[in-house]
Amino acid sequence: MADKIIPDIVVGRLPIYLRALQRLLQEGRQVTSSQELGERLGISAAQIRKDLSQFGEFGKQGTGYSIEALAQQVRSILKVDKVWEVVVVGAGDIGSALGRYPGLNNRGFRVVMIFDNAPEKIGTHIDHFVVQDTAGMVEAIREAGVKIAMMAVPAGAAQEVADRLIESGVKAILNYAPISINVPSDVRVQYIDPVTHLQRMTYYL
Amino acid sequence: MADKIIPDIVVGRLPIYLRALQRLLQEGRQVTSSQELGERLGISAAQIRKDLSQFGEFGKQGTGYSIEALAQQVRSILKVDKVWEVVVVGAGDIGSALGRYPGLNNRGFRVVMIFDNAPEKIGTHIDHFVVQDTAGMVEAIREAGVKIAMMAVPAGAAQEVADRLIESGVKAILNYAPISINVPSDVRVQYIDPVTHLQRMTYYL
Repeated sequence: MADKIIPDIVVGRLPIYLRALQRLLQEGRQVTSSQELGERLGISAAQIRKDLSQFGEFGKQGTGYSIEALAQQVRSILKVDKVWEVVVVGAGDIGSALGRYPGLNNRGFRVVMIFDNAPEKIGTHIDHFVVQDTAGMVEAIREAGVKIAMMAVPAGAAQEVADRLIESGVKAILNYAPISINVPSDVRVQYIDPVTHLQRMTYYL
Repeated sequence: MADKIIPDIVVGRLPIYLRALQRLLQEGRQVTSSQELGERLGISAAQIRKDLSQFGEFGKQGTGYSIEALAQQVRSILKVDKVWEVVVVGAGDIGSALGRYPGLNNRGFRVVMIFDNAPEKIGTHIDHFVVQDTAGMVEAIREAGVKIAMMAVPAGAAQEVADRLIESGVKAILNYAPISINVPSDVRVQYIDPVTHLQRMTYYL
């Protein structure tokens, strides 16, 4: 199972399934079905069964899935059955929100450092973090061995900051700057830009 | 052209193309090519040519695209050659950041109201907005005729808030709450949840 390549589009749906499973657990539920998950997610039950069958057998025909067991499996596949340390670059509105966001912690991630290059921000507090100078970023990240960064910097600074993150050993960047960045093939990038989502909807209005 | 159905996956790439074109304009450029766009975006030049050919002829073989003309065409297709009014629900960290975000304005959107249900937030200021009570939300949105909402509320409140937005006439919701919501078929939803993006990357680490 560990060696089987799962299509990227399926990998992209697994976090959505996991989120729904964790929600069901919060509601005190123990068993679910592909039908129920499908209704909650707006995805067909057949699609969900097909996706989950990519990496093994879950549940028994007719009795549904054990939510806890399925969640544990998906966590294991996504490698979030451990806690990943994450750095935040940029201590503006978004970076500060990420530093304070409680929703990371029970889903596999923990912010460990926040950086900015603005003198008026360096040394200030965000939650329990002291904002650190980006001048020392490469060394600090390398020393801590952190592999994941959330980047909330202006568009004009994004490529340079990304280059330095990669120099630090970072292999996954969640980019909030509204610009595409170039990275080597062994580094993953995901984008969060509210405007691209809004524009994708206005087409249909 | 207006009647031709563009596949949703192509619609999803158009905002990315538009963002790159606007960036090129900011850099003072006037002409680009599918090769250059492809390199900037990590998408093949052939894919870009194919996507753009879905809705007409742009540029001439060998001379490249006029950036301004192409940007204008894409804006028109995405219907962001006008400015859409948007409401924000939830005046926490994310909602406040959205209310202050300058990056919406030159890309087709303008926040016009911010709502929250917490007594300690109602009446406070975010940028030039006064946070309004969600108790009056349905009426206020309906009266203003706003069709787009950004929802930054706790997961447990998201479905109820979405239902009320839809009651108000909203047809497009950008949901920051980490939960899937159910909406009628004439309403579009897009999701922003940093954890799903992070989990999609850890699979590959």
